[in-house]
Amino acid sequence: MYYIGIDLGGTNIAAGLVNEKFEIVAKASIPTEVQDGVEAIVSRMAKAAQKVVEDFKITMEDVECIGIGTPGVVDNDKKEVAFAANLGFLHTPVVQMLEKLIPNKPIYIANDADAAAFGEYKAGAAQGIQNCMTITLGTGIGGGLIIDGKIFNGFNHAGGEFGHICIERNGRPCTCGRKGCWETYASVSGLIKTTAEYMEKYPETIMNKMVDSVGHISGRTAFDAMRKGDKIAKEVVDEYIESVAVGLIDVINIVQPEVLCIGGGISREGDVLLLPIREIVEREMFARHCDTKTEVRIAKLNNDAGIIGAALLGMKS
Amino acid sequence: MYYIGIDLGGTNIAAGLVNEKFEIVAKASIPTEVQDGVEAIVSRMAKAAQKVVEDFKITMEDVECIGIGTPGVVDNDKKEVAFAANLGFLHTPVVQMLEKLIPNKPIYIANDADAAAFGEYKAGAAQGIQNCMTITLGTGIGGGLIIDGKIFNGFNHAGGEFGHICIERNGRPCTCGRKGCWETYASVSGLIKTTAEYMEKYPETIMNKMVDSVGHISGRTAFDAMRKGDKIAKEVVDEYIESVAVGLIDVINIVQPEVLCIGGGISREGDVLLLPIREIVEREMFARHCDTKTEVRIAKLNNDAGIIGAALLGMKS
Repeated sequence: MYYIGIDLGGTNIAAGLVNEKFEIVAKASIPTEVQDGVEAIVSRMAKAAQKVVEDFKITMEDVECIGIGTPGVVDNDKKEVAFAANLGFLHTPVVQMLEKLIPNKPIYIANDADAAAFGEYKAGAAQGIQNCMTITLGTGIGGGLIIDGKIFNGFNHAGGEFGHICIERNGRPCTCGRKGCWETYASVSGLIKTTAEYMEKYPETIMNKMVDSVGHISGRTAFDAMRKGDKIAKEVVDEYIESVAVGLIDVINIVQPEVLCIGGGISREGDVLLLPIREIVEREMFARHCDTKTEVRIAKLNNDAGIIGAALLGMKS
Repeated sequence: MYYIGIDLGGTNIAAGLVNEKFEIVAKASIPTEVQDGVEAIVSRMAKAAQKVVEDFKITMEDVECIGIGTPGVVDNDKKEVAFAANLGFLHTPVVQMLEKLIPNKPIYIANDADAAAFGEYKAGAAQGIQNCMTITLGTGIGGGLIIDGKIFNGFNHAGGEFGHICIERNGRPCTCGRKGCWETYASVSGLIKTTAEYMEKYPETIMNKMVDSVGHISGRTAFDAMRKGDKIAKEVVDEYIESVAVGLIDVINIVQPEVLCIGGGISREGDVLLLPIREIVEREMFARHCDTKTEVRIAKLNNDAGIIGAALLGMKS
């Protein structure tokens, strides 16, 4: 049996065919073209799903179920997207619409950060850990919380907005309207902002030369410059790591998951990121004296987490 | 049928006999005398329980079950207190010890903030709301989270430390070892500290005269002075309310409970506290555009929440 996972993004729709070993055996990507409207988006989702089936030379008969990971607030009970500004979804019955194009196939849906967390739980760094979560450090901060093996996001499906906890009152303005949200510091965008601030303040840092040659600051600039021995870059990285840890400790103090995975592009830094974060967390978390406590890990599935998690949403466990 | 709730504190052990309408019909209080050790504390808990039964002229036969609310980390599975520094508990099998003194009676145990939240859920301001929570503004900030009608506090029972989320990096030092924790601003102790800071900075405020005559600053000083027209006191209250709201929004953005109750002595300020908090929360919470969202309420059971909640821990629902 196979499972199809669809990772719906503002730019691309990625579909993956997942086998029973939780591996992606075929992949397809189609531009989302948001401006064409909701019907067109759903029709492209169907096309992407059909493409992976055809590419792998199986039929929809061989597929147990389909799962969708989408931005926005997902109402699992109604199987609709309650709200996703970037896609123009407002109480959009995405599942029902896709069922018309791919009939007689169970279709599930979840928020994309939740789907990624579900992927890490089913097949990744938190495999089999019934109480776990994944924090994804991307353009913003996404978070997915699994409690007793199920996705948790509050009574109205709008919880789990881990990026929007305030770690610095009157701090950086956030897109959500608040100030000092965790993601304004600890997302990749936050890191880029901090890097730019240090580059302006310290013209001598080699980061300025590096960026001149590449053309733009990225989430890697400070890490790469640090590896070349630049002290200013090291300060940027230290400050970034500390800001990631502050929010992680907040989350751990509330939720105490057994395992907390850090995902997103920046997690590829591996131990450079993980080890100092673990040190701060173990020093400052409230439950540090308990026999058992949250273990922080690097996520395993990288960009595939969303597809694999979505694919497995309907898997009989 | 009746239920007994025991609210174990560092100073007093309070027991209450609760009837089927969730009212306390008899109460007893015995000094805890922590220095006498664990055995003595448990023996006093039994005494307090027996006293309410005798005072109300019933017998233990009429009691369905007993519940304990205790400070510290409670392991519900093992029915032990894993850790409660102030009481000298370390993996202390409190339930088993009490069962020896009051045999053949089901005994349940929970953290005291969780018991209070359970009380508000069963019989208070969040009655019947399966996904709710209570934040208690006291010496610190206690929090109890109910998910699907059950107390939630993480895989190791040490979660729900809502007071220890950082709202101001490098802010006030907290007893937990971190800086800028919510409770250093939004607990009663935090309010007293802010009041003291303003009194020193603005000698002209009538708060100085008020405190001179009473002898100490309390959580009411600023509120009372504000009501007398003092502008500095109003600033203290505004700042306090804003700091309460910051943490509430953090919690709501993560958990999205259907109802969030504010308890603790300061909640007796009622609408003076509640209305501006609601305004800030509704303006800044992430899910403000959703059809349904968290409603903030004032808790109802006041100091009895812990007793009633503990008493009902074992109630067949």
